[in-house]
Amino acid sequence: MKRYEKFADEIAELIRTGVLAPGQKVPSVRHASRTYGVSASTVFQAYYLLESRGLIIARARSGYFVCEHVRRPLPEPQPGPREAATTEVDVSELVFSVLSSIKDPDTVPFGSAFPSPELFPLQRLARSMAHAVREMDPRSTVADMTPGNHALRRQIALRYMVGGLPLPIEELVICNGALEALNLCLQVVARPGDLVAIEAPAFYASLQVLERLKLKAVEIPVHPRDGIDLQVLEDSLERLPIKACWFMSNFQNPLGASLSEDKKRQLAALLAKHQVPMIEDDVYAELYFGQHAPKPVKAFDSEGLVMHCSSFSKSLAPGYRVGWVAGGRFAGQIERLKLMTSISASVPAQAAIADYLQHGGYDRHLRKLRYALESQRNAMLAAVARHFPEETRVSRPEGGYFLWLEFPEQVDSLRLFQLALAQGISIAPGPIFSATRRFGHCARLNFGHPWSNSSEQAMETLGRIIRSLLGNS
Amino acid sequence: MKRYEKFADEIAELIRTGVLAPGQKVPSVRHASRTYGVSASTVFQAYYLLESRGLIIARARSGYFVCEHVRRPLPEPQPGPREAATTEVDVSELVFSVLSSIKDPDTVPFGSAFPSPELFPLQRLARSMAHAVREMDPRSTVADMTPGNHALRRQIALRYMVGGLPLPIEELVICNGALEALNLCLQVVARPGDLVAIEAPAFYASLQVLERLKLKAVEIPVHPRDGIDLQVLEDSLERLPIKACWFMSNFQNPLGASLSEDKKRQLAALLAKHQVPMIEDDVYAELYFGQHAPKPVKAFDSEGLVMHCSSFSKSLAPGYRVGWVAGGRFAGQIERLKLMTSISASVPAQAAIADYLQHGGYDRHLRKLRYALESQRNAMLAAVARHFPEETRVSRPEGGYFLWLEFPEQVDSLRLFQLALAQGISIAPGPIFSATRRFGHCARLNFGHPWSNSSEQAMETLGRIIRSLLGNS
Repeated sequence: MKRYEKFADEIAELIRTGVLAPGQKVPSVRHASRTYGVSASTVFQAYYLLESRGLIIARARSGYFVCEHVRRPLPEPQPGPREAATTEVDVSELVFSVLSSIKDPDTVPFGSAFPSPELFPLQRLARSMAHAVREMDPRSTVADMTPGNHALRRQIALRYMVGGLPLPIEELVICNGALEALNLCLQVVARPGDLVAIEAPAFYASLQVLERLKLKAVEIPVHPRDGIDLQVLEDSLERLPIKACWFMSNFQNPLGASLSEDKKRQLAALLAKHQVPMIEDDVYAELYFGQHAPKPVKAFDSEGLVMHCSSFSKSLAPGYRVGWVAGGRFAGQIERLKLMTSISASVPAQAAIADYLQHGGYDRHLRKLRYALESQRNAMLAAVARHFPEETRVSRPEGGYFLWLEFPEQVDSLRLFQLALAQGISIAPGPIFSATRRFGHCARLNFGHPWSNSSEQAMETLGRIIRSLLGNS
Repeated sequence: MKRYEKFADEIAELIRTGVLAPGQKVPSVRHASRTYGVSASTVFQAYYLLESRGLIIARARSGYFVCEHVRRPLPEPQPGPREAATTEVDVSELVFSVLSSIKDPDTVPFGSAFPSPELFPLQRLARSMAHAVREMDPRSTVADMTPGNHALRRQIALRYMVGGLPLPIEELVICNGALEALNLCLQVVARPGDLVAIEAPAFYASLQVLERLKLKAVEIPVHPRDGIDLQVLEDSLERLPIKACWFMSNFQNPLGASLSEDKKRQLAALLAKHQVPMIEDDVYAELYFGQHAPKPVKAFDSEGLVMHCSSFSKSLAPGYRVGWVAGGRFAGQIERLKLMTSISASVPAQAAIADYLQHGGYDRHLRKLRYALESQRNAMLAAVARHFPEETRVSRPEGGYFLWLEFPEQVDSLRLFQLALAQGISIAPGPIFSATRRFGHCARLNFGHPWSNSSEQAMETLGRIIRSLLGNS
């Protein structure tokens, strides 16, 4: 991290903790330079950055001020009713009709599931790819098949170890992205008709997978900040023959909520008590804005019950389709199922990522990526405060690239979706995140794209549409 | 094709049709050069080639002679009983125990499912890959997801068109190799408990997939040369509520049998009459030794019932995991299922193959590949004739890279498999190709690797083991 970035973070912390209040003047460049012992140009760069992150604003001839919107932090979304809902899943058609309508590349992609590809080191990856395929031993076209390229699995195991979770390389099975890993895990532990505990709201792909595999969902409510409701989960595990859990413990999609380490420990204990396996979807783990990487629930699982799934699609190499699962006691079964399902992940893609992890500067890239995403979050939060009605509730995720918005009840988010689309703006309407079609007045917005004038304008337009739906345009 | 290759083929044809009889002297170089109007060096090269293909043999100071083994063409395997067997499938464990034991790279890979990676233009592909990723539009990381890279789908559609089967690009869904395509197709048309018609013997992966999806197999016997028994199929379709067929119409694995165009037409008519969809596994179609590419059954299907699956894994790019399905009336459902299962095939691998198809010289490579495989087939057939007991029956496939061998009944091929493995030689024992564990005295041998001294020695060793199992070592 550069000096000015560090300094900017210090100022941001002062703003966050209220030491610098909304509307208050930020120390002048000369003053700050003297007080903090940094050069004037460092201060300049830091202020420029804070401005781009929507935290301070320049007023002509007066210097910088803490933005007003910080005074009016929008409230968080409300926790739902504290009860589990069991249901057949039948949401796929709705999801597809929404997804297919937002494919147009000219649409402002607030409804997208992906961050901007511009945030990734694609040219550096291309060099790793060129190098890897040029040097590739022909035998690797067979040898690198499932469980996967050895160097890649070693690098992944090393990253687990550095994160405080040593695991044997044999637990790792490389898959075609995390979604295939999740699919395989679920098929290993659940049969058609079984009950599977999922979150509410949940990542819509998990709903589609349940529907496809004829599994029944037990929806466990997720608190907007603290994550899954463990009390409800415990009751459900005691009451119902739940065969598996499928949860995101970090930066949950769509809420952005994370479990504390304490809750992760409790969750692992609950799983052990009931001997219920858990599929942990942890694809956003690397996209944290805090000081430290969050641990997975798997770090607290001593029984091999947690299958930890992740990928490089959201952190490094979109489109390469390289993900993995650390399968715990189920690793062998997952490996076999993978062989029967699609034999292997792409060998060149695996080799390219292995090369990049060894030589490409992954951690440096991740720091830049996290920083960009956090800045974009701030910019979008500021735009929500500027343009959306006061009654809007919004999450404030500490990682990932999604905001979750809760509007007043009379805002039908499917209608909002249609009206926005007609204006060239996509959003992800709330009902696609629920097997029971709840969240009809909620929406997920993607802040994974560099903030621009057109983003700002799109937020203004959305705000106008929401007001019109409230009947006070 | 080079002049000497063409000349060698002419001589090979004379041998095949009996104009040049086994043991007979081949025309001298001078004589041949004069008679056929080619240079002496062309004749030399051609004879050298024919020798390497096991068709002629040099005797010191006497010139070349047609090999003796041509006199004793081993009989073909016998067709099985002409009846369908319906059964639950439970063969996966056996398949995995066989497959995992043959992974050792030092083993002579007669049991392998793959041709030698040395037969593929991996360096030329690496250049296409380097070029494709360097030039890749970042947006393609999203845009090339399922149904897939447009340039690649266009190239595939063009190849269908050139082969006499024009189809709309919208029918094509790119998958992670053919196996994923086959899996998706089956899941679109069959539910747990349904009956699916497959071949006997059948590709073991299809048995594993049926087992995994809890489908019941209706085994339709395959004639060693003419392919599936249409009469038995017709009876079965009339008698049983078969929900889908899964067949290989060209160079069937493991028998190597192909359906004639007439039979393909009849099969398509049968499907239409009963409105039963067919999954056509056509991964060896490009590996034909004859003059013309064989047509798929899909070429005779006017109702969109045939889902034609193939890939580049066996013809161009092993390990890239790029396959496809031309899904007929099911294309839309397959596309959705693919999105839910693993989102997309690897984008760089798709782009690399698209680039290669446009600029790499695919057809030139294919000609070389077919030629190599045919030569290797001849070499292995010659080795079977030299080293195996007279009672051995063997297929003579006109494409692909597998021989199917039928030994006398007292040869237990699982025992043969164990004994051969102890000698560092793998084979694929017959029972892994049947849901009903038939073919206990059969085996599949892979001739997809360049013939070498160690291949020859391995065949000699196998012959010895087989004799010992016959009790006449």
